[in-house]
Amino acid sequence: MSNAHGKQYTLSQLAEIVEGEVVGEGDRIITGISTLQGAQNGDISFLANPAYEKFLAETRASVVIVSHNSVDRCPCDALVVKNPYLAYAALSHYFAFALTEPLGIHKTAVVHETAEVDMTAVVGASAVIEKGAVIGANVIVGAGCFIGENTVLAEDTRLYANVSVYHGVSVGKGCIVHSGVVLGADGFGIAPGPNGWNKIAQIGGVVIGDNVEIGANTAIDRGALDNTVIENGVKLDNQIQIAHNVIVGENTAIAACSGIAGSTRVGKNCVIGGGCGIAGHLDIADNVHLTGMTLVTKSIKKAGVYSSGTAVEPNAKWRRNVVRFRQLDELANRVKKLEKDIE
Amino acid sequence: MSNAHGKQYTLSQLAEIVEGEVVGEGDRIITGISTLQGAQNGDISFLANPAYEKFLAETRASVVIVSHNSVDRCPCDALVVKNPYLAYAALSHYFAFALTEPLGIHKTAVVHETAEVDMTAVVGASAVIEKGAVIGANVIVGAGCFIGENTVLAEDTRLYANVSVYHGVSVGKGCIVHSGVVLGADGFGIAPGPNGWNKIAQIGGVVIGDNVEIGANTAIDRGALDNTVIENGVKLDNQIQIAHNVIVGENTAIAACSGIAGSTRVGKNCVIGGGCGIAGHLDIADNVHLTGMTLVTKSIKKAGVYSSGTAVEPNAKWRRNVVRFRQLDELANRVKKLEKDIE
Amino acid sequence: MSNAHGKQYTLSQLAEIVEGEVVGEGDRIITGISTLQGAQNGDISFLANPAYEKFLAETRASVVIVSHNSVDRCPCDALVVKNPYLAYAALSHYFAFALTEPLGIHKTAVVHETAEVDMTAVVGASAVIEKGAVIGANVIVGAGCFIGENTVLAEDTRLYANVSVYHGVSVGKGCIVHSGVVLGADGFGIAPGPNGWNKIAQIGGVVIGDNVEIGANTAIDRGALDNTVIENGVKLDNQIQIAHNVIVGENTAIAACSGIAGSTRVGKNCVIGGGCGIAGHLDIADNVHLTGMTLVTKSIKKAGVYSSGTAVEPNAKWRRNVVRFRQLDELANRVKKLEKDIE
Repeated sequence: MSNAHGKQYTLSQLAEIVEGEVVGEGDRIITGISTLQGAQNGDISFLANPAYEKFLAETRASVVIVSHNSVDRCPCDALVVKNPYLAYAALSHYFAFALTEPLGIHKTAVVHETAEVDMTAVVGASAVIEKGAVIGANVIVGAGCFIGENTVLAEDTRLYANVSVYHGVSVGKGCIVHSGVVLGADGFGIAPGPNGWNKIAQIGGVVIGDNVEIGANTAIDRGALDNTVIENGVKLDNQIQIAHNVIVGENTAIAACSGIAGSTRVGKNCVIGGGCGIAGHLDIADNVHLTGMTLVTKSIKKAGVYSSGTAVEPNAKWRRNVVRFRQLDELANRVKKLEKDIE
Repeated sequence: MSNAHGKQYTLSQLAEIVEGEVVGEGDRIITGISTLQGAQNGDISFLANPAYEKFLAETRASVVIVSHNSVDRCPCDALVVKNPYLAYAALSHYFAFALTEPLGIHKTAVVHETAEVDMTAVVGASAVIEKGAVIGANVIVGAGCFIGENTVLAEDTRLYANVSVYHGVSVGKGCIVHSGVVLGADGFGIAPGPNGWNKIAQIGGVVIGDNVEIGANTAIDRGALDNTVIENGVKLDNQIQIAHNVIVGENTAIAACSGIAGSTRVGKNCVIGGGCGIAGHLDIADNVHLTGMTLVTKSIKKAGVYSSGTAVEPNAKWRRNVVRFRQLDELANRVKKLEKDIE
Repeated sequence: MSNAHGKQYTLSQLAEIVEGEVVGEGDRIITGISTLQGAQNGDISFLANPAYEKFLAETRASVVIVSHNSVDRCPCDALVVKNPYLAYAALSHYFAFALTEPLGIHKTAVVHETAEVDMTAVVGASAVIEKGAVIGANVIVGAGCFIGENTVLAEDTRLYANVSVYHGVSVGKGCIVHSGVVLGADGFGIAPGPNGWNKIAQIGGVVIGDNVEIGANTAIDRGALDNTVIENGVKLDNQIQIAHNVIVGENTAIAACSGIAGSTRVGKNCVIGGGCGIAGHLDIADNVHLTGMTLVTKSIKKAGVYSSGTAVEPNAKWRRNVVRFRQLDELANRVKKLEKDIE
């Protein structure tokens, strides 16, 4: 599939962007970007993952971004770079659909008279900006967004449609916040009393750094007393839950459906797989990698890859093994006894 | 509980709808539909699950939908059909509350001048329809929905309130999309670079077939280069995450809170239980059934029922077994040694 | 961090609220509330968890809420109470930010002429209130909320921005519903037929008791025939899924990302950890506590703490143990044989 949306570049122009070397015709016109398998004439493609090398010989792409190692096997023109995946990431933006951005504040938006909206900011239809909020330069607030009292959105940040940001939240520069995200809702703070649960007011805020991306329907709660903090460069996928007073360190990436309970601190440059759960009040070191659906109930003090759970198997076999798991402690004791008996 | 909302039918009328046989009075007036336990005089009920047969004798329903096998034990009039559950499904719609639908485009909706909205379509209050979008015949766009640029909603599709659909998304005929759903947000495409993560533009779209239902707060991301595809007849429950370039095959049903990672292809007629996680770049065969909270990290090539995880047990016992799980490889080696020693 | 927002109280005033005893100067002015570690001069703090006792000596708080046992080690004025955590919960509300509430119905809201909105209720910008809905005294409906036909919101209930409530839902008094919540979407009711899945109309409603809090992006489906029921005092965190016809008993608290499948009844005073999954048609007794990410596939008849899954470990070790788990039934049989051989 070619996704050129009418845009075209010469191969030389693209090479310049990624500081790559052209092996072939620099004047060639490139009209789209695609996978090796899906590419058509006029497309640029890329080979980043060795698993896809099998598609190289047959690709119909006009150019393939490759590393030095693969240039010989490229059946067409090549754009040689050190890191083809990074080069693809850079060039992808040149072929992306350019949304038709409205200008200024839509007439159906409701902006409080004390809110400061930069002249270059865009506020979509039916968006609401409350008292004292500050909307920076080039910020785009999508249709139907709610921006609470005293909340600050720094320059170049984009909120897609229907994002809800409570009061007293700070979002840094160049962030992307997808639809359905909720920032700054109350943390789950309840104290057991004689007549049930007593709510604890959630007085802290949420502070989000620069260049953070937050996926659809993710929720980040405000702090109980101090702030919940998402540091610069963090990337959050969809459907994630970040509880009150969590701190997520710089450049950590978290895949969809994971949840982090209250007051846990996740280090820098971590990669948290999908569906993971991290209990509250823990400390996760820098450079920790959790594989999918891992449950963490103790702090992790050393960088490395961690896992929990069991792997998929046919249900009939699994049922037998699960029964044995319930007897595992007993089984271990029986083995111990056998060892003694044999001695 | 009777849910008649003022509607009533004769037993003969209902029998005709489901092509069933009346055993009793065809002129009997039916004013509601209910469970066996909750039924009152005037209600029709059904016996589809043998586990509920115990409630048959005592039911106060006026009519029960039964199969041939159970008609003798029915204490009241019977509507005999081959598949009582399907008959109940069909008749349920005759007793459902009929929402008062507005007509046309609400005056507070914001519809771009180039968008094509069919004369028979309904656009709710504060909904936004962007440039070049196409809204088909009898489509209902709920209040507060956002429909992005060039997105197409085919005929007879309904979006409940506050659904967000990005640009370049295609939704087929007769679909139902519940509140809070996000279609077409960016896939989680990031490439590691020297200064953190580099965003990869998500250029693909989302293509959703006909008769698809999408539950509340589910998110389906747009593709990186090619499309994310949900085929005809797929049923998705709430809080589900479908990542970029996933393909979900025809008539597959996925229960709530499950997540499917990027580029995985799920076959036709699969049933995925709640809270499952399927890793990226996998192939799941047709007719695969995953039980709840199963983690899949390898392709599944054969139809069948699959599971992972362990079953619930009292915490004190579980703690001991979990410790033993951590020693399981060592335990297996000790058993091997014992076997050798005994030989 | 002090979060006083300009509010200040004397220590005696605060003591009166929580019926505590002042050890120190009752006239002392308190301007904020904070953790022991973060407190500054003028703040009140609290010692509720023995793990934090180590911070007591060094705190810069002006007053600490303590129990009788710790008063001697308090380096500053003390507010002595029986239950410091409950006292903190009570006082927290006195330091919370007071949102600037609008008055009445915003001019951009769309309220059906037959809806009854109490004179003291607030309806935010672009909110939609459908036919026959009833909005009680002091209710706050946030901006962009949708309130469906015949839905009732009882007095003193607050919906934050962008909440979607379908038709025929009843929310009790004093509830708090956070952004992105969806109440009353269709349950996942589908019957397999010869041509795929047939939708079952979801005719039941949702009934939510008094003093219930519902976290961001949580979804509670309407019942198939009877209602889905959330009893008084239930506290739900973010991203939770409650399926059709679930009943959650009084004062039960459920942490984020958990899901409860259809027709399951959860007892009173349960505590369900984050990321748990409870299968359908089960009965969970009162006072059951599930630890995080527990999967429940059978009814639990006795109060107590329950768990499932395995604990996190380094991936290399985990991989070996997971392989052994798949052979666990066989291993158990081998041990049995060894035991026989030795006899």
